[in-house]
Amino acid sequence: MGFKGEKTRKKILDDAAHLFRTKGFGATSINDLLEATGVTKGSLYFHFPGKDDLGLEYLRQASERFMDFIDEGLEGDTAAQKLDSFLRLALDYHRGRGFVGGCLFGNTALETSDTAPAFAQMTAEVFLEWKRKLAAIIAHAQDEGAIHQGRTAESLAEFVIAVLEGGIMQSRLHKTEEPMNNCIETLRLMLFIPNPGSDQRRSH
Amino acid sequence: MGFKGEKTRKKILDDAAHLFRTKGFGATSINDLLEATGVTKGSLYFHFPGKDDLGLEYLRQASERFMDFIDEGLEGDTAAQKLDSFLRLALDYHRGRGFVGGCLFGNTALETSDTAPAFAQMTAEVFLEWKRKLAAIIAHAQDEGAIHQGRTAESLAEFVIAVLEGGIMQSRLHKTEEPMNNCIETLRLMLFIPNPGSDQRRSH
Repeated sequence: MGFKGEKTRKKILDDAAHLFRTKGFGATSINDLLEATGVTKGSLYFHFPGKDDLGLEYLRQASERFMDFIDEGLEGDTAAQKLDSFLRLALDYHRGRGFVGGCLFGNTALETSDTAPAFAQMTAEVFLEWKRKLAAIIAHAQDEGAIHQGRTAESLAEFVIAVLEGGIMQSRLHKTEEPMNNCIETLRLMLFIPNPGSDQRRSH
Repeated sequence: MGFKGEKTRKKILDDAAHLFRTKGFGATSINDLLEATGVTKGSLYFHFPGKDDLGLEYLRQASERFMDFIDEGLEGDTAAQKLDSFLRLALDYHRGRGFVGGCLFGNTALETSDTAPAFAQMTAEVFLEWKRKLAAIIAHAQDEGAIHQGRTAESLAEFVIAVLEGGIMQSRLHKTEEPMNNCIETLRLMLFIPNPGSDQRRSH
């Protein structure tokens, strides 16, 4: 495919993003896509054999970007700072979008788990990889003495993902920052040990 | 409406349940509904002017049943036992359905928050009422000294809902009990104070 073809393909993926993120993959129609991308039906089908191919490619690229972000986008010298950074940047991301669209992976999990195996399988891999990456950070933070050690790093990673997804859900529903912010602050209180390295350990 | 009419109306709502819970409201077509309910198109439209009317009525009745369950279905003499019972019964419910369908209200939150105001508004009211009811139980459990007191009862209720929804999401996606079970066990560890009333308070 030439440069112009690549550019059209990329434009279709970019312009379809808002539809996929707000309406979901199933409810986004071919007509919605033609309207949002401005390409002809012939051009759309030249680049993607069907709507699901476009949707799956969008999901694949979004998951790559998300994994790169976890690998390279987190700030901090210690693992605890990196986890803290992840929580802060997640809130910033959703606040910056006015809590519209939510988490693409959470949306797709609930939309497709029982009905669209190709989407569900790709989403399941995203969640497993997300958990693995967070568990690695949390294991280091546990070694640093900065994170609750009563559960395995993998269990805590799954818990962190649950809290974020449930917080995003409530903020997206009510279109207010408060639920996601509260869920993250409550999670911090329960997860992080204040003053790691000092004699004081978590106690209430 | 006579007895037979009431019976048909109830049958439509009952038979539509699996579709709404697995596919969502938007992706369930009139043809899906005719096939699942076995009624004629004329009968369907006699009872419900449109698909959304049927969907909203199903959502309204499901939310009433859920609120009744919280008011009357929880076991235990103390508030902490009632909260514990809620967590246990939630896991039992989803395990009993093989993690198919998930939480109707979480599904509907993510499906409709940005695109279907009538559904989103009804779902927002369900989440607020759910939070109020849990917060009342948690406030009592805090008074009993059985629950973490570092956050308000309302904040903890929102957090409990987030953990459950995020746990259900991951169990529904992977079709295994482990994520929801782990999220609930981790929540218990972080929320409940062992041996309330004794000298021992939470410490690790």
